[in-house]
Parts: sequence; structure tokens; C-alpha cells
Amino acid sequence: MAQTTPNHTQTVSGWAAHDSSGKISPFIFRRRENGINDVTIKVLYCGICHTDIHYAKNEWGITMYPVVPGHEITGVITKVGSNVKNFRVGDRVGVGFLAASCLECDLCKSSQENYCDNLQPTSNGVFWDGSITYGGFSEMIVADHRFVVHIPENLPMDAVAPLLCAGVTVFTPLKDGNMLQSPGKKLGVVGLGGLGHVAVKLGKAFGLHVTVISSSASKEKEARERLGADHFILSTDISQMQAGRKTLDFILDTVSAQHSLGPILELLQMNGTLSIVGAPEKPMDLPSFPLIFGKRTVKGSIIGGIKETQEMLDLCGKYNVTCDIEVVTPDQINDALDRLARNDVRYRFVVHMAGKSASL
Amino acid sequence: MAQTTPNHTQTVSGWAAHDSSGKISPFIFRRRENGINDVTIKVLYCGICHTDIHYAKNEWGITMYPVVPGHEITGVITKVGSNVKNFRVGDRVGVGFLAASCLECDLCKSSQENYCDNLQPTSNGVFWDGSITYGGFSEMIVADHRFVVHIPENLPMDAVAPLLCAGVTVFTPLKDGNMLQSPGKKLGVVGLGGLGHVAVKLGKAFGLHVTVISSSASKEKEARERLGADHFILSTDISQMQAGRKTLDFILDTVSAQHSLGPILELLQMNGTLSIVGAPEKPMDLPSFPLIFGKRTVKGSIIGGIKETQEMLDLCGKYNVTCDIEVVTPDQINDALDRLARNDVRYRFVVHMAGKSASL
Repeated sequence: MAQTTPNHTQTVSGWAAHDSSGKISPFIFRRRENGINDVTIKVLYCGICHTDIHYAKNEWGITMYPVVPGHEITGVITKVGSNVKNFRVGDRVGVGFLAASCLECDLCKSSQENYCDNLQPTSNGVFWDGSITYGGFSEMIVADHRFVVHIPENLPMDAVAPLLCAGVTVFTPLKDGNMLQSPGKKLGVVGLGGLGHVAVKLGKAFGLHVTVISSSASKEKEARERLGADHFILSTDISQMQAGRKTLDFILDTVSAQHSLGPILELLQMNGTLSIVGAPEKPMDLPSFPLIFGKRTVKGSIIGGIKETQEMLDLCGKYNVTCDIEVVTPDQINDALDRLARNDVRYRFVVHMAGKSASL
Repeated sequence: MAQTTPNHTQTVSGWAAHDSSGKISPFIFRRRENGINDVTIKVLYCGICHTDIHYAKNEWGITMYPVVPGHEITGVITKVGSNVKNFRVGDRVGVGFLAASCLECDLCKSSQENYCDNLQPTSNGVFWDGSITYGGFSEMIVADHRFVVHIPENLPMDAVAPLLCAGVTVFTPLKDGNMLQSPGKKLGVVGLGGLGHVAVKLGKAFGLHVTVISSSASKEKEARERLGADHFILSTDISQMQAGRKTLDFILDTVSAQHSLGPILELLQMNGTLSIVGAPEKPMDLPSFPLIFGKRTVKGSIIGGIKETQEMLDLCGKYNVTCDIEVVTPDQINDALDRLARNDVRYRFVVHMAGKSASL
């Protein structure tokens, strides 16, 4: 049963999973009125992230059904609260993974809301008023303006949507690793999927020498020709891995499947950093020797703060970086989830919320 | 058969292992003449490190028998080469793990000889002249002056010996982690052995709040009373580990046995660093969630450069930090190696090279 509070007076059409089958079906629910700090957004597009599968199928055991997935949202503002100064009706905006945080802790005050102990996600979270949050698989959303970002005018609203999660997830570690102002430095990207392909594009935009490391030989052509990667290493080919030893300054590992970090660490130069942005469910193997003999670093990172998200979008506007997407209509969400589960998409599904749907 | 070159004219008494039994026995061999860049050192004391066991028993498969172990050497200079300006006959000096490096690469030029691709260890290495290096289990040693350090006058030559390896191994990551000028910051030390007990002493010397994390309840009393640790967490006690969550800024993990990094990472605050200085032979378990949700870092480090070694010794002189040792005579080396293998020492064996020996 949907959990709402008395101020939840707006009836909304959306799409929800109702049990661990993860099947998505049309769902009518209520959202809160537009509060003084809120903006109301007509949702145009919403990307599909692996986390949406986890939530829909309750794979992490934390799903509160019915769950309305979706946290890569773009749309247009239709209403603004009286406290909102930086957004106006008609603005093109985005909402990502974060719906709320405490706003008071040191992390929130230093624009690292994504690490706040009390962060609440846009989908399957609990908002300040006690209501469960419903995500972007819906025709409209009410969001606190402090968790909303502007979309650059030159970027299309569909292909920009996945930047709200996949984009900032790979941007933040690049920024932390001082790779934004280091043209010529050598970036490795492990895995060429929703996260990886954005990482390659951002890397090239920042003037880096980009190497894609993948276990699929078929990815070489598209890595080089479609995405502009400078080099490709087939991770199952020992001679290629050997030739790549100590050649990279920084590696982004976007792979969520179980794997050993040893061979990847060997590709790093002395003092190099391996940034983990995938989330394998089982522990990764970390051999000590390539770590200690190379003074190497393994660092975790998850999404980014709101300020970083805006910075990432502005840079994507500047360099004209968007995601490679396949647009689907709401009635195709179940097919898309199935295909995503087997990585059958180049590289991100985006749901066109006003798209023709057999269901509604 | 001992590998020497024509300039190896000095006959020396020492102690060597001759096969993978690892048994140490008296050994007469030859060292090179004192070259223009060399100093000759009468060895007074030599610490016993776990690496000596690995070498003696060929546990890493790289031992060149006969092997003369020992790389925590203190002694007095008896001869200096014509190019040597910073040492004089009679100086109290130390030699650690490094016997040689290329001296030309960026790492050597930035005082990180310990990461040079061509570094050669003091024992079981191959020196520039092609000869095999013999370590500190001997009455004298000839060392290139660029790999020799001064021992502060106020420190005893026996208890200072293990600082040459164990000391600098824990000092370097503390320095890299900006913990030398951060009084009040919270340091965790995992494992209370040869490395860990020095880490506790250094941490207290630098004004840090030091927590020892150990799987042995019996270590609490000595951690607090003998070494001055501020806090103790028994790693097998879930409630203690839970209470310690997100309390530490920096953790030094000195444990060489197989273990998961997950519970240790949970003790770190957001952005905290776990420094790995032990070398488990099998890969460690690294769960992604505490890494990415805490933006935490796992970093490797091994020994230190010569400049850092001197800096560490000077600070130990300033703060009067030495190792807790048990002094043995050369004829007790085999017993000591056996006891070290089962961690039966508080906290480091040091061989008194001129000590009474039944064997020589």
C-alpha cells in the first residue's frame, strides 16, 4: 500500500513493480503538493539504471512495494515554490538519485550530500515528511529544488537523462583524481556499458588518452570508432594485459560482475589509482603484491553531490557530451529491463514518458 | 655456490641458510673491497624480519642459496670510500632493505628508490657488479653510502635496528597520509606485532589518538599499558566493531594473514584511508559497498626511500622511539626464526652479532 501523508493530494499516473517478479505495470498514486521549497516537473524522459532492476526485484531486500523506479529524470518545470529563486516555470531540469539529505552535516555542507547518513533516494526512499518516494517512471514529480539541476540548452533531453546518474558516477572520481585538467594523462576504463561509455566520452572531452579494458573482443571496434578510444586491451588476452603493464595513470572500473582487481592494478603506473564505481555483490579479490609494490590506490566512489552534478552537466554542455541511448515507450519498460539485465543495450535505455504506450 | 666478482677479496664470517629447510649455520664467504662510493660497516646488531623466513625457506621461490639473511642492520663504520663525504670512520649507521637501485629513474630521483624497477635488496639481491648480496647476519658488510643512514646518538643500537625495515614500513604511509602534523586525528593499527607496535609508538609520538584492532583479547592490556594506546577493539567482538564504525581517520593494516578488509573499512570515517603494509600471500576480500558508500581508500605501501628512512630515524631520535626487542646470539637464530614463525616474540628479535655463540 502506498505510503503518503495528508499533503499528498496530487493524483499521478506512473509505472510500478508490485512484487519481486519485478514486472512493471501502470500505477496511479499520489504525490505531495508543491511545497515552498519544491518544484513540480513534467517528466519527459527517464533513464533505466541497473539499480532500478535491483529495486524492482527486491534484490537488495530493501524494496517497499509498490516501487516506482527511475532516477535519471529530465523534464520541464511547471510550478515553483515561494522559496525557490534559481528555477522558473519552463526551465529544463534534471533529477538524479538524490531526493533528500539532512542538509546540516559536514558532508551536506561541503556539497557531498551523496555521502550523508540520512540521504534518501528519488525512488524507494523516505522523504522528510515520512512519505515513500516514487521515482521518474511517472508523468510528473515534485522535487525539493536543492536536489534539482539545470540542463544545458544545447543538450537533448533524452540523451542527457542518464548523465544524472551514470554520468556523475564516472565524473566525480575523475574530478577527485585530478583528471579534469590533466590533458595527455592516461585513463583506463574497465567495462564498456552505461557507465563506461560515458567515461570514455568524458575522458576524451578532457583531453585524456583513453584505453578501454574489456573482456569482449567485439567491443574494440566500437570503443575505437564510435567512442573515440585511443587504445583497447582485451582483458582475457594475457599478452595484451602484459603489454599494458604500468601504462595507465588512473583507471575507472565500472564492472558490477565479480572480478579480481590484481590484473587491473598491474596496468597502473606507480602511485596510480583504481576507482571502483561498480558494485559487485560479492567481495572482489585484492592481491596485496600489486598494491604494495606499486604504492597503488583502490578508491570507492558513488554518484556525486548536487554541485558536482551541475558541474558535470555544464561541462557536458560545453563539450557536447551525451549518452548513447535507445529510447523506449513506457509499455516497453519490461522488455528493456530484461534486455538490460543481459547487457543488451548500447548503452542506456531511456523511457519517453509521453511516448505512445499500449498500457495507458 | 656463492656468486662473487674479482674484487671480492674480503673474507667474512656470517650465517646462512643452504636449502629450503631454512636452517641457519655458520658460513664463510667473501665481500667486495670497499669501493669509492662504499662504506665498510662492522655489524653490531641485525633484526629478524618475516621476510628473512621467506628467503631462508625459499617460500617465494626466488632464493639463491646460500642466502645470508638480515636487512635491519646497525653498526659502526670502519672504512669510507674516496667519494663518500657524509660518513666518517666511527659513525653509527644503519642499512635497511635496499642495497641498490638504478639511481636514474624518476622514482630514484624523487627519493622513492623503494619503488625503482631495478631495486636490489640487501640480502638475496644482485648488486651492480653482478654479485649476489649477502645480508646482515655477518660480522661486517660493505654498502654503497647512498643506501646507508645515520643512527641518532641517543638511540641504542640494538633496539633501533628493526626501525630500518619495520619502522620505515609504518612511517611512510603515516607521512603520505598527512598524519605527522595532525595531532588528535584518529589512527587505527590492525595487528600488534613487529610492525604494529612501532606504529602505535609513532602514532603516540605524533600526537594521534591510537586504537589497536586485534583478534587477540590478550593484546589489550599490553596495547594500552605497555605501548600507550588510547583504545582497543577486539576484532572478533561484533559489538566492539559495531561501536567503532566510522570512528577512525586512517588505519594501518599490518596483518600478513588472510583476512577480509570489509569490517576494517567500516571503522573508517568517510574519505578515510586504509593502508596495507602486510603482504598476505592470498588475495584479500574487498567488498565494494563499504568502499564506495564511504568513498574510502585502500592504499599499498612498502618500506620507504632512503631519505624517508633518515627522516624516520631522526624523528625517532627526537621522540625517543625504539622497538621492543628480544636480543639473541647468533647460535640462537634458528630458535628465533621458529618462534617468529609462530609470532612468539614481543616484538622483534635482534641478533647481537658479536654475542657469545656456540657455533663460531
